[in-house]
Amino acid sequence: MKKESRKFTVTPWKIEGNIQEEDYAKLTKEFGTEPLTNELLERIKKHTGELHYLLRRKIFFSHRDLKWLLDEYEKGNKFFLYTGRGPSGNVHLGHLLPWILTKWLQDKFKAKLYFQMTDDEKFLVSQKLSLEETRNYAYENALDVIALGFKPELTKIIIDTENIKKLYPIALKVAKKLTFSTVKAVFGFDNATNVGMNFFTSIQSAPCFIENKPCLIPLGIDQDPHFRITRDIAPKLGFMKPALLHCKFAPGLGESGKMSASQPETAIFTTDSEKDVEFKIRNAFTGGRETIAKQKQLGGMPEKCTIYHYLLYFFEPDDKAMQEKFHACRMGQTYCGECKVKLAETINKFLREHQKKRELAKKQLGKFLMKD
Amino acid sequence: MKKESRKFTVTPWKIEGNIQEEDYAKLTKEFGTEPLTNELLERIKKHTGELHYLLRRKIFFSHRDLKWLLDEYEKGNKFFLYTGRGPSGNVHLGHLLPWILTKWLQDKFKAKLYFQMTDDEKFLVSQKLSLEETRNYAYENALDVIALGFKPELTKIIIDTENIKKLYPIALKVAKKLTFSTVKAVFGFDNATNVGMNFFTSIQSAPCFIENKPCLIPLGIDQDPHFRITRDIAPKLGFMKPALLHCKFAPGLGESGKMSASQPETAIFTTDSEKDVEFKIRNAFTGGRETIAKQKQLGGMPEKCTIYHYLLYFFEPDDKAMQEKFHACRMGQTYCGECKVKLAETINKFLREHQKKRELAKKQLGKFLMKD
Repeated sequence: MKKESRKFTVTPWKIEGNIQEEDYAKLTKEFGTEPLTNELLERIKKHTGELHYLLRRKIFFSHRDLKWLLDEYEKGNKFFLYTGRGPSGNVHLGHLLPWILTKWLQDKFKAKLYFQMTDDEKFLVSQKLSLEETRNYAYENALDVIALGFKPELTKIIIDTENIKKLYPIALKVAKKLTFSTVKAVFGFDNATNVGMNFFTSIQSAPCFIENKPCLIPLGIDQDPHFRITRDIAPKLGFMKPALLHCKFAPGLGESGKMSASQPETAIFTTDSEKDVEFKIRNAFTGGRETIAKQKQLGGMPEKCTIYHYLLYFFEPDDKAMQEKFHACRMGQTYCGECKVKLAETINKFLREHQKKRELAKKQLGKFLMKD
Repeated sequence: MKKESRKFTVTPWKIEGNIQEEDYAKLTKEFGTEPLTNELLERIKKHTGELHYLLRRKIFFSHRDLKWLLDEYEKGNKFFLYTGRGPSGNVHLGHLLPWILTKWLQDKFKAKLYFQMTDDEKFLVSQKLSLEETRNYAYENALDVIALGFKPELTKIIIDTENIKKLYPIALKVAKKLTFSTVKAVFGFDNATNVGMNFFTSIQSAPCFIENKPCLIPLGIDQDPHFRITRDIAPKLGFMKPALLHCKFAPGLGESGKMSASQPETAIFTTDSEKDVEFKIRNAFTGGRETIAKQKQLGGMPEKCTIYHYLLYFFEPDDKAMQEKFHACRMGQTYCGECKVKLAETINKFLREHQKKRELAKKQLGKFLMKD
């Protein structure tokens, strides 16, 4: 049998290759998830009154058991939300993507949220970060979470090493049902993988089982393997399988791949200065032609343009405005330079606000952190 | 090369076969530990003024780095003690063996002690125990520890699931340096072993690294594999390797093997009633002859007698009295029946006292448990 050639690799710790729009369908198939259908979106809309642009645009594109979750909700069984962050550095816009939708879901469904900071994991996988550093990032990154406007009365931020007393007994119950064979198969581990990583996924499962209620996890598709394990084990522990809602990778500013913290020039960090933003956007890859004359003649290629994708993913929630921008570019009526200047301004406006809220979050931290 | 036939297997979770006195020398060789020499005993005596019978009789028979530990002590670097218990049920006399010497070492060296209750481990390996049960046993077993007379101001009892916030960050640092290959080789794990067990030895290492000081671990020889790993990793974390002092397996009341909680008739539990003790001792295996006539004629075989070994290990600290008993049996001057009655009385006297102290310990527990 001829093996299909693979242009990308997706695991929770590595995303490689140039992932194209059409690859998400492959990923859905390969991971065995369900595509997020218009029918499901309509069911969500029935409860929320409107649809978030990240749903309308299918930036959240795939799910597991969302239909079941909505069935339960309609029977009166409310769900809680769970998402998280591996605190290995500063937060960039790509990290915000699942959190933005999570915040919207919290508001619309008045849902409790557990937000997990996996400082333990990031220490275990890092070549250079100390545990003290990943824990510091956990606190730093928590400010970005809070700045997005989550409700303190509905939100518990878990920092793994701080809240381990709560997580560990649950993780032990998961770990007892989980063999090395399984983590080897799911994550591609081998005999040289450290035993902390073998165990870690049990800790990432734990928040699903703090409460025996339906649970919805908005997350990057790369994190799906962890929760395949969680879902497999849940019924063995007498719990419901968490439902998942997967998003695509946020676009980077380079020619290919996702936004990556390890290539800082491809990502806008929430802590970037105005100058940083201007510089990065000025150097961003676009779908523009070599000359203004050619742009006028042939039109731009917005589908290849990182500026366009930044608007689509983050900064232009209005679909009509988005279509007009697409059309104007295609028609050669707009030029990359002006699009870049506008986007940099929009980002800097967002960051000024975000950074202000991030400062205020320092005083609110205590209200958000899970106790014990 | 012809492989030497093995009559016994020793791992932290399984001791199989009939372990004879001569097997301990083999075990020392196989595990790569050092025999506890008279020279070392003399060095200990220099500081303690006397030698505990468990040392004199070489019931503690093997060590790692004890010479180094004494060098450090003589340079003024005091050591702390660390030992523990896997709380999978009630405590029997065999469990007390390392704790008895640990208590003596605490008194003689005024050494701080960390005593670890591995309720997590016992849950992970057990076919039937829940985590709630192993945690309950941890608290129950702690009463036996306290009843032995440890000093509250020098003793911290760690219950893994309760004190995990202290242990976990240290365990992560150990786990990061430890691969599945290593735990596979050291413990005989395979791909079907649960990932909790793969990780667990990191938690058992953690108490060694709470303080960066010399550490001495009195323990059953079966626990040595855990600390081979700890000792290997210690310098990589900037810590000293803990020194180990290994004891033999406590004799069971049956014809072979060690005292075993899974065969309750072979062991005296601290919670046994007087009737239980009388029954078990009456049925104990001895080195006596079939008839009184033969006993008189041929003499008994104390070296095979469990009653004799109970005196040697637990209840007759006087070497001279021990020799006299041995001699009298050999000469056919004593009979099993009377030895059994006397031993049952001695055990019951000990247990009455122990059970009284165990009751009092319930009020002292708070002083002994490690905080947070």
